[in-house]
Amino acid sequence: MHIDDTVAAISTAPGEGGIGIVRLSGENSLDILNKIFVSIKNKDTSDFSTFTMRYGHIIDPSNNEVIDEVIVSFMKAPHTYTKEDVVEINCHGGVVPVKRILEAVLKCGARLAEPGEFTKRAFLNGRIDLSQAEAVIDMIRAKTDSSMNEALKHLEGKLSNKLKAIKDRLVDMMSHVEALIEFPDDDIEELMYGQIENDCLEISKSLEDLIVSSDTGKILREGLNTVIIGKPNVGKSSLLNALLEENRSIVTDIPGTTRDVILEYLNIKGIPINIMDTAGIRNTEDEVEKIGVQRTLEYFNKADLIILMLDYSSELSSEDEEIFNLLGNKNAIVLINKVDLDRKLNISKVKEFVNEKRIINLSVKTGEGLENLKDEIYAMVYKGEVKYQSDVLVTNIRHKDLLIKSRTSLMEAVNTLSRQMPLDLVSIDLKQCVEYIGEITGENVHEDIINRIFSQFCIGK
Amino acid sequence: MHIDDTVAAISTAPGEGGIGIVRLSGENSLDILNKIFVSIKNKDTSDFSTFTMRYGHIIDPSNNEVIDEVIVSFMKAPHTYTKEDVVEINCHGGVVPVKRILEAVLKCGARLAEPGEFTKRAFLNGRIDLSQAEAVIDMIRAKTDSSMNEALKHLEGKLSNKLKAIKDRLVDMMSHVEALIEFPDDDIEELMYGQIENDCLEISKSLEDLIVSSDTGKILREGLNTVIIGKPNVGKSSLLNALLEENRSIVTDIPGTTRDVILEYLNIKGIPINIMDTAGIRNTEDEVEKIGVQRTLEYFNKADLIILMLDYSSELSSEDEEIFNLLGNKNAIVLINKVDLDRKLNISKVKEFVNEKRIINLSVKTGEGLENLKDEIYAMVYKGEVKYQSDVLVTNIRHKDLLIKSRTSLMEAVNTLSRQMPLDLVSIDLKQCVEYIGEITGENVHEDIINRIFSQFCIGK
Repeated sequence: MHIDDTVAAISTAPGEGGIGIVRLSGENSLDILNKIFVSIKNKDTSDFSTFTMRYGHIIDPSNNEVIDEVIVSFMKAPHTYTKEDVVEINCHGGVVPVKRILEAVLKCGARLAEPGEFTKRAFLNGRIDLSQAEAVIDMIRAKTDSSMNEALKHLEGKLSNKLKAIKDRLVDMMSHVEALIEFPDDDIEELMYGQIENDCLEISKSLEDLIVSSDTGKILREGLNTVIIGKPNVGKSSLLNALLEENRSIVTDIPGTTRDVILEYLNIKGIPINIMDTAGIRNTEDEVEKIGVQRTLEYFNKADLIILMLDYSSELSSEDEEIFNLLGNKNAIVLINKVDLDRKLNISKVKEFVNEKRIINLSVKTGEGLENLKDEIYAMVYKGEVKYQSDVLVTNIRHKDLLIKSRTSLMEAVNTLSRQMPLDLVSIDLKQCVEYIGEITGENVHEDIINRIFSQFCIGK
Repeated sequence: MHIDDTVAAISTAPGEGGIGIVRLSGENSLDILNKIFVSIKNKDTSDFSTFTMRYGHIIDPSNNEVIDEVIVSFMKAPHTYTKEDVVEINCHGGVVPVKRILEAVLKCGARLAEPGEFTKRAFLNGRIDLSQAEAVIDMIRAKTDSSMNEALKHLEGKLSNKLKAIKDRLVDMMSHVEALIEFPDDDIEELMYGQIENDCLEISKSLEDLIVSSDTGKILREGLNTVIIGKPNVGKSSLLNALLEENRSIVTDIPGTTRDVILEYLNIKGIPINIMDTAGIRNTEDEVEKIGVQRTLEYFNKADLIILMLDYSSELSSEDEEIFNLLGNKNAIVLINKVDLDRKLNISKVKEFVNEKRIINLSVKTGEGLENLKDEIYAMVYKGEVKYQSDVLVTNIRHKDLLIKSRTSLMEAVNTLSRQMPLDLVSIDLKQCVEYIGEITGENVHEDIINRIFSQFCIGK
């Protein structure tokens, strides 16, 4: 991977804003700036101190006309985002100013940065490991404070440190095993077998804690895919509105997300909730409606949580029962709405249908039960507020898969040990385990995987 | 207007980007930063030098938890955007990081800035005049390089300087007139009448030059509203595609614009073109179609330019003639498309219909004539490349209106002089003229107007 050139990109979100930033990274950053920047005070940028700013103009190198009034800042390698020289040009925040300044920069020899290339350089130059780099885009895409907090922990290296501790311990074990292979000693061999097996089980427990945390972590990162379902007029929209009301100020339209499958975003106690649009699932002959029903069933099958709404004030209908049949062993909460009205619903019949699923009585109208619903969702995601052994959650499915693989290798080592098989085999398992962990942190990972990770980044980061 | 508090806002465009900025302005900016910023190196920000940056963390003041990793910069009054102390917090560019940092800043005593409040402060604190402040948002909203260049000229004070020169001259004249009123002197009075009249006419010419430039200026600022019209299959979409093709890389989706009335943006030789969607104007009984036709007629009447397309390879239809009847004395270009095919169109009949309007032969298919169309539009907007007397164009309709008013006052002065009426009346006219010019630069302008101007700004500028 070649990182000896200087790259540039627009680093602020596209659109209308007060300030736009064009960022450069690489050893020619300052030279390129020199060709297009005219400082008001200091004519010379060769004495540009690190972490200082200058006011001036960006000029078009082809005709020396002023493009924009700017403030440029310089950060000297290695104490920068990429560990390379970094220049940031702060200009007017419109579409045209940033575009023109970027063009001028490219004309003077910078290469257009690929998506995520600044962060990729931070990784390749060794400032952060791969799991930290992945946390950068999670910070940017975070939908709630809790998801951002989790991303920040990763960014700051909480997961990396934990993995490093595990790896160090494995490497330590490996050297013991290697020594024993090199200089066999029957006296201590049996003792060692027990000791190594013990260590493996302990490490496996640490890995298991991380793997378990990923159920919650994934939801914090990607949101809880939720379908609200129920017959017409049961109160689906009112529930959504009630939940949205207190969210209005927090939930923001996040550009770039696929609005056609997600109706609304909610933030429930810090958990990002993706409410998926459902067209209903009634039997229909109408072709267009059939497509809607088909889509609903797809969401239904993909959903992390089904919220099934029933009407306290009316009897169970065949439509309700149809929905019950769909539930199966899906993760679902049954909401009995309109408890402010007179009961006509046969609750014990409902209980028969939904088996052991959680039932919550509420009235969207009066607000009764709404808190219970939120608490239930929170408890569900955080597994009843059980504090994780691990203080950092695995949020990334790539990490989870590798953790599962590394634990499998470890259990193979245990298996080999318990069967008193040769230590060489144990050594291979341990090595494999270390390699999987190294794939998370990026110490040993294929270039393709690195490229795939950074291609999902936004431009300019 | 009170500007003694410290304000804050998100200054980057909303959405997903590499970097987000929360900006503070006001005398408490640094104090507020101190409460939430933990520098990695320098613990103390009291020695924060102007135009320098520091790396560290923003912490939540309520629980001391880290919110984000940031680089903060400090610019000390008065050499800043607002002439006040300015702090910028550069954080991760997502929706949640900037929101949380803004919340922390507000919790520590900053007030949420109104739209345009930073620029308003720059104006109220005397760094820029009102016409320069208005150019700031024109920079941000500019759709082409030419529109941005024009905005930049205003921002850099080209219009302000011109107005200042005119105003100085008027004030000079006024003092002469006042002196003559105070100390009448029959010997020189007649001489003076002629001199003043002459000066008034000269100044009036300068104002006229500026007023004339506003036809072009307004188009550079707001775009040329264009309707392409013609019967089905005449090649409207192909023309649009041909014009769009070379624009793809430049034309950008500008969020916040009303996409429902504008189909496409084009950039023709630096002129922003708004192509308005037309549903056709054929007679119809269909109610829905009728609404479409009604809308088309509205656009038609609002348009700066109609591009009427005819088919070289077919005879004039009743539909073509219907459109001819609508043209009236509207600004229009008649495009005869498909000149690569055999002619069936009766050109002389077309000429009768369209009278003196410009006719261009082209073939969208072969590209023939496309450059002519662009040249024609360019010449139309720039009035045949006549170089304006004024090297800066009036782009803002508010400025144009005030220039017309000030010229009217001036001509009243001329009228008063030529009728040998008392100099007191001339003095009043001159004073009125100066006041109108002062309304452009904001020296004397009602608070309501100022508020209305800045309310059209984006947040964070």
